[in-house]
Amino acid sequence: MVIVMKSGASLEQINNVIKWVKELGYSPHPSVGVERTVIGAVGDERGKMILKNAEMMSGVEKVVAILKPYKLASRETRVANTVVDVGGVKIGAGNFVVMAGPCAVESEEQIMQSAYIAQKGGAQIMRGGAYKPRTSPYNFQGMEEDGLKLLAQAREKTGMLFATEVVNPGDVDLVESYSDILQIGARNVQNFALLKRVGSSRKPVLLKRGMMTTIEEFLMSAEYILSSGNDNVILCERGIRTFETATRNTLDISAVCVLKELTHLPVIVDPSHSAGNWRYVIPLSKAALAVGADGILVEVHPDPANAFCDGAQSLKAEKFYTLMAELRRMEEALGMRKLQ
Amino acid sequence: MVIVMKSGASLEQINNVIKWVKELGYSPHPSVGVERTVIGAVGDERGKMILKNAEMMSGVEKVVAILKPYKLASRETRVANTVVDVGGVKIGAGNFVVMAGPCAVESEEQIMQSAYIAQKGGAQIMRGGAYKPRTSPYNFQGMEEDGLKLLAQAREKTGMLFATEVVNPGDVDLVESYSDILQIGARNVQNFALLKRVGSSRKPVLLKRGMMTTIEEFLMSAEYILSSGNDNVILCERGIRTFETATRNTLDISAVCVLKELTHLPVIVDPSHSAGNWRYVIPLSKAALAVGADGILVEVHPDPANAFCDGAQSLKAEKFYTLMAELRRMEEALGMRKLQ
Amino acid sequence: MVIVMKSGASLEQINNVIKWVKELGYSPHPSVGVERTVIGAVGDERGKMILKNAEMMSGVEKVVAILKPYKLASRETRVANTVVDVGGVKIGAGNFVVMAGPCAVESEEQIMQSAYIAQKGGAQIMRGGAYKPRTSPYNFQGMEEDGLKLLAQAREKTGMLFATEVVNPGDVDLVESYSDILQIGARNVQNFALLKRVGSSRKPVLLKRGMMTTIEEFLMSAEYILSSGNDNVILCERGIRTFETATRNTLDISAVCVLKELTHLPVIVDPSHSAGNWRYVIPLSKAALAVGADGILVEVHPDPANAFCDGAQSLKAEKFYTLMAELRRMEEALGMRKLQ
Amino acid sequence: MVIVMKSGASLEQINNVIKWVKELGYSPHPSVGVERTVIGAVGDERGKMILKNAEMMSGVEKVVAILKPYKLASRETRVANTVVDVGGVKIGAGNFVVMAGPCAVESEEQIMQSAYIAQKGGAQIMRGGAYKPRTSPYNFQGMEEDGLKLLAQAREKTGMLFATEVVNPGDVDLVESYSDILQIGARNVQNFALLKRVGSSRKPVLLKRGMMTTIEEFLMSAEYILSSGNDNVILCERGIRTFETATRNTLDISAVCVLKELTHLPVIVDPSHSAGNWRYVIPLSKAALAVGADGILVEVHPDPANAFCDGAQSLKAEKFYTLMAELRRMEEALGMRKLQ
Repeated sequence: MVIVMKSGASLEQINNVIKWVKELGYSPHPSVGVERTVIGAVGDERGKMILKNAEMMSGVEKVVAILKPYKLASRETRVANTVVDVGGVKIGAGNFVVMAGPCAVESEEQIMQSAYIAQKGGAQIMRGGAYKPRTSPYNFQGMEEDGLKLLAQAREKTGMLFATEVVNPGDVDLVESYSDILQIGARNVQNFALLKRVGSSRKPVLLKRGMMTTIEEFLMSAEYILSSGNDNVILCERGIRTFETATRNTLDISAVCVLKELTHLPVIVDPSHSAGNWRYVIPLSKAALAVGADGILVEVHPDPANAFCDGAQSLKAEKFYTLMAELRRMEEALGMRKLQ
Repeated sequence: MVIVMKSGASLEQINNVIKWVKELGYSPHPSVGVERTVIGAVGDERGKMILKNAEMMSGVEKVVAILKPYKLASRETRVANTVVDVGGVKIGAGNFVVMAGPCAVESEEQIMQSAYIAQKGGAQIMRGGAYKPRTSPYNFQGMEEDGLKLLAQAREKTGMLFATEVVNPGDVDLVESYSDILQIGARNVQNFALLKRVGSSRKPVLLKRGMMTTIEEFLMSAEYILSSGNDNVILCERGIRTFETATRNTLDISAVCVLKELTHLPVIVDPSHSAGNWRYVIPLSKAALAVGADGILVEVHPDPANAFCDGAQSLKAEKFYTLMAELRRMEEALGMRKLQ
Repeated sequence: MVIVMKSGASLEQINNVIKWVKELGYSPHPSVGVERTVIGAVGDERGKMILKNAEMMSGVEKVVAILKPYKLASRETRVANTVVDVGGVKIGAGNFVVMAGPCAVESEEQIMQSAYIAQKGGAQIMRGGAYKPRTSPYNFQGMEEDGLKLLAQAREKTGMLFATEVVNPGDVDLVESYSDILQIGARNVQNFALLKRVGSSRKPVLLKRGMMTTIEEFLMSAEYILSSGNDNVILCERGIRTFETATRNTLDISAVCVLKELTHLPVIVDPSHSAGNWRYVIPLSKAALAVGADGILVEVHPDPANAFCDGAQSLKAEKFYTLMAELRRMEEALGMRKLQ
Repeated sequence: MVIVMKSGASLEQINNVIKWVKELGYSPHPSVGVERTVIGAVGDERGKMILKNAEMMSGVEKVVAILKPYKLASRETRVANTVVDVGGVKIGAGNFVVMAGPCAVESEEQIMQSAYIAQKGGAQIMRGGAYKPRTSPYNFQGMEEDGLKLLAQAREKTGMLFATEVVNPGDVDLVESYSDILQIGARNVQNFALLKRVGSSRKPVLLKRGMMTTIEEFLMSAEYILSSGNDNVILCERGIRTFETATRNTLDISAVCVLKELTHLPVIVDPSHSAGNWRYVIPLSKAALAVGADGILVEVHPDPANAFCDGAQSLKAEKFYTLMAELRRMEEALGMRKLQ
């Protein structure tokens, strides 16, 4: 931490801060400037929120944090990319993984058709929600365990593994008994009880950024999972909330670059939820590949006009095949490892 | 819903939409404008997300919602103010209720001192966290049940009832056995599993707005609790996340006016979390009273410089007494019911 | 500035930065921490953007600014409140000034009626736009010089001085020949050519915060005016743009507290533009007084339903009188200097 | 417009609105729903802000706009892409144009070196600022006409045309006498006096989106230029302001898709200002190409560590050559028209 004293702070005030920093077990490094005195507090700052309280003290202007608050998620701790292996599908290994399927599991017919579309297009992993966090209590809340069973049935028929969301710590036992990847949705990115619980699972976790979450907070949420013992975390940028309403959320494409620099964890992009409109999904998926993401999570539905949720942002089969063809062309051009 | 067709939409496209609206059980009301055709879909729109999928259809530009998506929380359903009665303390009855206490329960000494300060100042309800949702897994996570016991002990000594946060549906049984008000924190405003669970409690719920929650979404979260059977919901505006970083969050003071218009539920303000700085807590509390809020939730600590969390935004005893004196003066001036 | 080196930065990288800081005329203060080396650069940092380029250098993680970038606007430079005197009406002297009038000057009849309403209610200053910056080129753009003449006529009849907006540096000569206060609108808060030009005027300047302007940037814009020689600047908080759309903008009421702490300039609030809805104007005006603002700028119109712009946020005469009566009651209760 | 009445509005209130809509020259289309009556107002809504005032009327809940407020900028008016021809360099013709150069013109040597780097890398157009809008009055404000002369000299030597910013309507005569493209910066996107003035120029205009500007407002600003007579407008997405501070701004990459759908004007991306960090410029430029932008505006400097402004986001020569090579590879892969 760096403690910045007010212009005109008295010697007594400065000495009080120095004394207090020492009492907390830190080594104070005062530096007297032309206008202000600045006091560095050297020590391991992580988890020592109390230093921040210096802002209460007389004569103090502000306290500036220097160290990154996450450790296990940081590239400083681990330089090499983490590769998450989901039944042989590698995520984060320089390839581009496509996870595709409907927003929600609605019926046997719908999930089987979706799975065949995903497979025919060349997706490696299937997605589909059985527990749906919905803004309104009056909207479809998901098929719950029946939905998990249908996903398992589709896996049996197609051989494709799947990711599905879990929303309640009390449901993790059940969901992990079916699912290949535990998905944590945007609204639960700071549901710490849930993060701790999936941190003790042996299944990989797909963690979506919240619509209000900074990149640093996002990495702190990953840190909850990592520090609970689960190393297999996949990060997913899915758009943030801004003043712009032309898209459902604003895809923070730069976050992919920033995350690839700060962390060793794989980073994928959800172009469907960020756009909220199927017409933008193809170009945004291509942008995700170009910017260096490790894959996408994309919504595909056999009949979007009758989807129970998010129909407007789901691709029909033909559009999905077009997307996959364009991604393959780009992968070759950029000399990437092939889609497996 | 109002379905707006694209300029130049063909008659066939328009008829397709009309047919589809009918099939969904709505009555279509087309209206042909100079540039565009607009189709109203009459029926109860709530929970009928499928109409929104019209955006997928050929020739459709956009779909605009007309009805409010919440019902039980709406003033249209219930005109008179809901008054939440917490052991005789009335919230929402035209008086101004002060809930005060530390961010977290830290020790017996700290919570007892806090309770005496709150009581001496004239607060009606005590606050204090035993389960702390913290951005970092390395920060103090709360004393859990031991904290609840200390809060109960302070209640016994002072007679003041208390509010405390619950973060996990699995903990509600335990927390409601101690607490007088169940607090749902900003990060859990869309933790729907938790909302449903406190909706089945008989204890009043204090629901904080999320830092990126719109007023409409906030009321939808209240609707989850109300529709699960619990009528006693107190809303709390605690600042939203914006681009401005001079304060921890941006207190959306106008939200109080908007909420008082849209809903019958009581609305209080948390000036401490929104400001993040004790120096702004007094003026913001006065603004909350002036704008028409039903009370405040304010952080008070016997020794902010050594608080385990949020020390910088906590008031010392003397400052809290000053605040209470100023609020009383304003209440009289504005002819409000007295602090009980 | 504080230059934070990356974890694992080499001694050579550290020495390169130290050498470069010296070459720029600063005195480097390195401090070696457990995980990182931090180098303070002591000297007057203002206007020395080049130090910021250290982020380019090998081994550097980030550069953190310590000093405030504004000087003349700062309370550190001038402790006592600036009181702007507009023909005897004092702004910033502990009283609460009300400036009232229509969004735009529309006709002789409309502006005269508005002036009489403002005066009857007890406003001290009149407002009205003759040059209107409008989002659409097809909307009413203002009466220009004819509007200025009508404002001058209303001043003659009522004795009330007025504020009006100027949008083009080329128009300042003309506008200052009529107006008592030069208003700079939110969209022009970083129109630096315009700020410099009004900085050379002898008329007071009413500077509105932009809808995406941080408090620091706002003070830097004031600094442009002050450093061009005009000391009489009144700041106006008028709402910022956020994700919330229930109000036109989000009134950042805390900004008043922050500004009163950081600067000696008077700060007023515009409840009309922030709310965008007349129903919220009265409670927000009361909140402005309670939070410590020096006044309000409020829209009043004799016939809002037929106003050329912003009718929905304008108060009718009766509502304005109610507002003024409530403000007077609060002033007395809070022991403020009376409305002059 | 669609006027939504409150639930429970009386017949008299409804009839009053219908009567008023007629008086304004619109044709009212009432439609009685289960819960609410909705009144469509048919007519050309553009520029008729007065309809919006219905929100003032008794019994009205809200007024919803249906038509797009821009006309000349809309694809509905002009389906085919506008191709802006700058001395033979075509922008918007399916190719990808690179405009490169320093933030500011600093000296003859610096601008000549920059021009040679831009040319060697294969950029088609040069950029460089002679008038610099800076947040602080104490920062370098640009070389003004001397800078324009140096840009003209670089053009003479290299044959590359250039874009440069103009900030004051009073300077347009001078700037257009030198420059090939008139650039309007983000802070001036709603400086309507400036937009009207460059609208009467015969030089193409490069209009940057403001950091607080919605896509609709951005198109309205383009509409100011188009409706003043200048058809040659190039739009530039350069990042918006959000809560995320890891990058200088948040590049709204989806805005490219939305703009390509709504307007016929060419759209380019500025990866340098959005990122604020040279390390992210290469991946973001590739994302811009992949998403369908017509080009980029990128900062290149011979010696970023000593740049007068924005050094941290400028590419060195070698990095720029790498970027250009990668873009060429992608263009081929995607089958785009070659860089000219």
